Amino acid sequence: MARPPRSLGCTLDYQASGPSTFVFAVRPSEDPPARQKILRESLTLSTGEPGEEWRSVDGIRWLRVLAPAGPVRLHYEAEVQGEPVVHDPAGITEIPVQQVPQEALHFLLPSRYCESDRLTGFAQAQFGGMAQGHSRVAAVCDYIYQRTAYQRGSTDVRTTALDVLTDAAGVCRDFAHLGIALTRALGIPARFLAAYAPHLQPPDFHAIFEALLMGPEGPCWYVFDATRQTALDGVARIAVGQDASQVAFCSIWGNAQATGMQVRCDPEPGAAKEWTTAAVSVSVA
Amino acid sequence: MARPPRSLGCTLDYQASGPSTFVFAVRPSEDPPARQKILRESLTLSTGEPGEEWRSVDGIRWLRVLAPAGPVRLHYEAEVQGEPVVHDPAGITEIPVQQVPQEALHFLLPSRYCESDRLTGFAQAQFGGMAQGHSRVAAVCDYIYQRTAYQRGSTDVRTTALDVLTDAAGVCRDFAHLGIALTRALGIPARFLAAYAPHLQPPDFHAIFEALLMGPEGPCWYVFDATRQTALDGVARIAVGQDASQVAFCSIWGNAQATGMQVRCDPEPGAAKEWTTAAVSVSVA
Amino acid sequence: MARPPRSLGCTLDYQASGPSTFVFAVRPSEDPPARQKILRESLTLSTGEPGEEWRSVDGIRWLRVLAPAGPVRLHYEAEVQGEPVVHDPAGITEIPVQQVPQEALHFLLPSRYCESDRLTGFAQAQFGGMAQGHSRVAAVCDYIYQRTAYQRGSTDVRTTALDVLTDAAGVCRDFAHLGIALTRALGIPARFLAAYAPHLQPPDFHAIFEALLMGPEGPCWYVFDATRQTALDGVARIAVGQDASQVAFCSIWGNAQATGMQVRCDPEPGAAKEWTTAAVSVSVA
Amino acid sequence: MARPPRSLGCTLDYQASGPSTFVFAVRPSEDPPARQKILRESLTLSTGEPGEEWRSVDGIRWLRVLAPAGPVRLHYEAEVQGEPVVHDPAGITEIPVQQVPQEALHFLLPSRYCESDRLTGFAQAQFGGMAQGHSRVAAVCDYIYQRTAYQRGSTDVRTTALDVLTDAAGVCRDFAHLGIALTRALGIPARFLAAYAPHLQPPDFHAIFEALLMGPEGPCWYVFDATRQTALDGVARIAVGQDASQVAFCSIWGNAQATGMQVRCDPEPGAAKEWTTAAVSVSVA
Repeated sequence: MARPPRSLGCTLDYQASGPSTFVFAVRPSEDPPARQKILRESLTLSTGEPGEEWRSVDGIRWLRVLAPAGPVRLHYEAEVQGEPVVHDPAGITEIPVQQVPQEALHFLLPSRYCESDRLTGFAQAQFGGMAQGHSRVAAVCDYIYQRTAYQRGSTDVRTTALDVLTDAAGVCRDFAHLGIALTRALGIPARFLAAYAPHLQPPDFHAIFEALLMGPEGPCWYVFDATRQTALDGVARIAVGQDASQVAFCSIWGNAQATGMQVRCDPEPGAAKEWTTAAVSVSVA
Repeated sequence: MARPPRSLGCTLDYQASGPSTFVFAVRPSEDPPARQKILRESLTLSTGEPGEEWRSVDGIRWLRVLAPAGPVRLHYEAEVQGEPVVHDPAGITEIPVQQVPQEALHFLLPSRYCESDRLTGFAQAQFGGMAQGHSRVAAVCDYIYQRTAYQRGSTDVRTTALDVLTDAAGVCRDFAHLGIALTRALGIPARFLAAYAPHLQPPDFHAIFEALLMGPEGPCWYVFDATRQTALDGVARIAVGQDASQVAFCSIWGNAQATGMQVRCDPEPGAAKEWTTAAVSVSVA
Repeated sequence: MARPPRSLGCTLDYQASGPSTFVFAVRPSEDPPARQKILRESLTLSTGEPGEEWRSVDGIRWLRVLAPAGPVRLHYEAEVQGEPVVHDPAGITEIPVQQVPQEALHFLLPSRYCESDRLTGFAQAQFGGMAQGHSRVAAVCDYIYQRTAYQRGSTDVRTTALDVLTDAAGVCRDFAHLGIALTRALGIPARFLAAYAPHLQPPDFHAIFEALLMGPEGPCWYVFDATRQTALDGVARIAVGQDASQVAFCSIWGNAQATGMQVRCDPEPGAAKEWTTAAVSVSVA
Repeated sequence: MARPPRSLGCTLDYQASGPSTFVFAVRPSEDPPARQKILRESLTLSTGEPGEEWRSVDGIRWLRVLAPAGPVRLHYEAEVQGEPVVHDPAGITEIPVQQVPQEALHFLLPSRYCESDRLTGFAQAQFGGMAQGHSRVAAVCDYIYQRTAYQRGSTDVRTTALDVLTDAAGVCRDFAHLGIALTRALGIPARFLAAYAPHLQPPDFHAIFEALLMGPEGPCWYVFDATRQTALDGVARIAVGQDASQVAFCSIWGNAQATGMQVRCDPEPGAAKEWTTAAVSVSVA
């Protein structure tokens, strides 16, 4: 389902007090594995050097830069055309573990921020008796949405899914971590998805998650957003991984501090702004 | 409400490989602050020495013994007459913090096993909207009872209330810890109560908890048992404290291992075996 | 050892958006159990009402106030004369558990912020082989001092001793929590001490800790400061407890925010500013 | 450095009370990426079906089996010829992050059992001032070895590197997790290595770890064993991953219990039994 293209981008500023290595993941993924096309894009680095770029197995487009002391600015802009597929949630089922595709099995495992092994009891008590399918993962998201305060500053880089459950507060990455952990604890592969997303106030990178379910044409990664802050069919996928630890938009080794960040993602012309309960996929399984 | 007396007691065996200090809390509390009378009792120690006994502010009867290497046996038996009060839960309200008796204020604070400070968000999301009163603490217990598996060996001495919530499994002390933590997180003083209790299978010491609420005659500590394994009006109170860390029936410094434990608590003649929803108090506030 | 009196005090400001209960502990303890005299003092509350004051078993002077919506200011000032005792560390030994005074036994137990039970292995590996005595607790403090960064903002109200060890960063209460946890893990009673202290930059309440050891006249609580930021014989004791959870200078129930805090503690005229390795006690055991 | 072949294998028994999916990783890796040759091997499953086998990017040989209720036995045996390289530790340096090979960058990140992000302060305080190189990772291992008790039953599946540090006890996987976490916290890529290893008492699968350092011919994964229980040049690599969560020798979905396990790994004929401080590599970077 090709959509009208829309503009997106970011400007990231840092101040390095010594030579520092930056690893960025800010370019949207390309088709495949993402269901989206990059119509045009430009990335500039204030350091003047091109950096080292590569693509990893899930389509993440990495950029590594060694910057000297001083200010560092990355500016990126692109025109991206989404081609999400939208399915009727009613017919989507869960996949028995013996049929989960080999390359997706590790998304059943616990990870740094998503201790699904420690939430198995809770997840089974809360969601174990529900009908299986897309609706069960949606119920996980409803549960999180209804009781978790979206609250800037309430969490930090060490906040894990367990904390989000007990604090009942967090930001988008925290909502995603809890969603992932509970979903994995139900035996469903789930992964973190970093994206550009429209309608966020204030604009920012967004974090949602994908669960692998059986769609009409086979196993399919469907997106879920327990924050309900964006239109799922309007997000532009950047990176997927086990959790935020693996897909930061910027990791720094050395001595540098973020000094500014601007993120932009126009909505698709004519697209609905509303949060939706449809089953949307932006990744090819 | 005086009850027919019943027998209770315990036999505790240890093997010390060197001189070890034991601190026991196995004698039931006396009236006051416990609503029970010790009609007769006897405590014998295999070491032949009397040990050092004292009573702390909440009525706990401590015994400290320095034992040489070798076997150590404590044998205790008593006839105890309970005098619990039983109130109609309907009229029992919560106490505003400014009216909580001074000496109970610290039972609003978090403790080693009951991290109420970290469960405030969860408790408010789950129970914050409910009508206040005895029924709200009962709702906390119902919640725990319905989703937590009573499972020997599922937890250990480092298991805290947070773990019990996420594992959805535990033994009596774990149920009590989660109940205490959630109750404190609602702004209600709560404390751990170690007791002899009838009907346990297998027989053992029991752990329940008390919440301070406003009863018909003033502030009153009511007992709650999220395990539903005993008759609340049939328990014989041994000790109260912030959590299990403070009221172990036996703490050991030195090098000694438990080698056997037998606990006995006859039901009161003619008493109902059933778990009850009545508001029962066994402590004087 | 009577010292010249010195002035101290605090001004605490809050903004309540609804009726809120404040529990303060800002008045220094009196003799006994503190080794200090209050020569004069005055406490004023902007709410105009006296509040409810009482003293708990360890000499803490509590004040509870129910304030309406609006600004709340507490202003306290006093002239306090310290009478610390100072002993030669060389002759101070550890107390076998069977000889620890009954009322101090619970300071061997783990608490919310001082998980001594979980640090036993570490403490024994690091300090188990050392000679026992005051010097061993001093070695715990040296260890903490040498590897822990004093860093405002590095920790928060959920930071425990375990975190301080692994983060190697914290503020005074964190240093105290790690010191307490490691000391208890060695079988030595230890407790948190909140105090006015001179020389702090910026001025603030200070948190140090006390360990119970055998001094020349019997069991004695000696103070330790792993931050090395004050003169131990110049502190004015406010409150002791298992950890910071029990002796906050202000706890609030309701909806109020701190808007300002000023703390003042003049040094004693003629007193040394330097951190000292002497064995100082400010509490009567 | 080709070695004489040796025999190894395992017999794993389970009892399934319903259809269960097993995912095994018991076959040693082949060359490349492992520096070893499988001369012959045989794997039999009591269920009679072949299962589904595949190889992942790091050379792990997975086997997935859907077993009906009843007993399940996997029997594996092989003859494996190791070809480890052994370098002089003295010349081995650390690799600046900007030069770490792209595919190894994620081994700098924290993971479920190796919270390197939370051990950065501790690692820097303890090892930050040391000379960089192979010797620094060896110093991490020495530190762990000297203070950690190798103690069966002291830990369980939720034990993480933080726990191992504070408990100062664990089994091989725990030693490896702490080694990995501290090494990553120093900015050095590190990963978990599951292996057959000679000399273990009792025989078992072994867990050690690899750190990526600059060897004489370029980046090289060197093995480290903080338990000192095996000959590093005699291990047969099975699987590598971020930590034990990713490379269990058997994961089960369904309702099945382990009922027996036998692991066998002959020493290489003529090989030294002794633990060694040489720099050994069994993986191709």
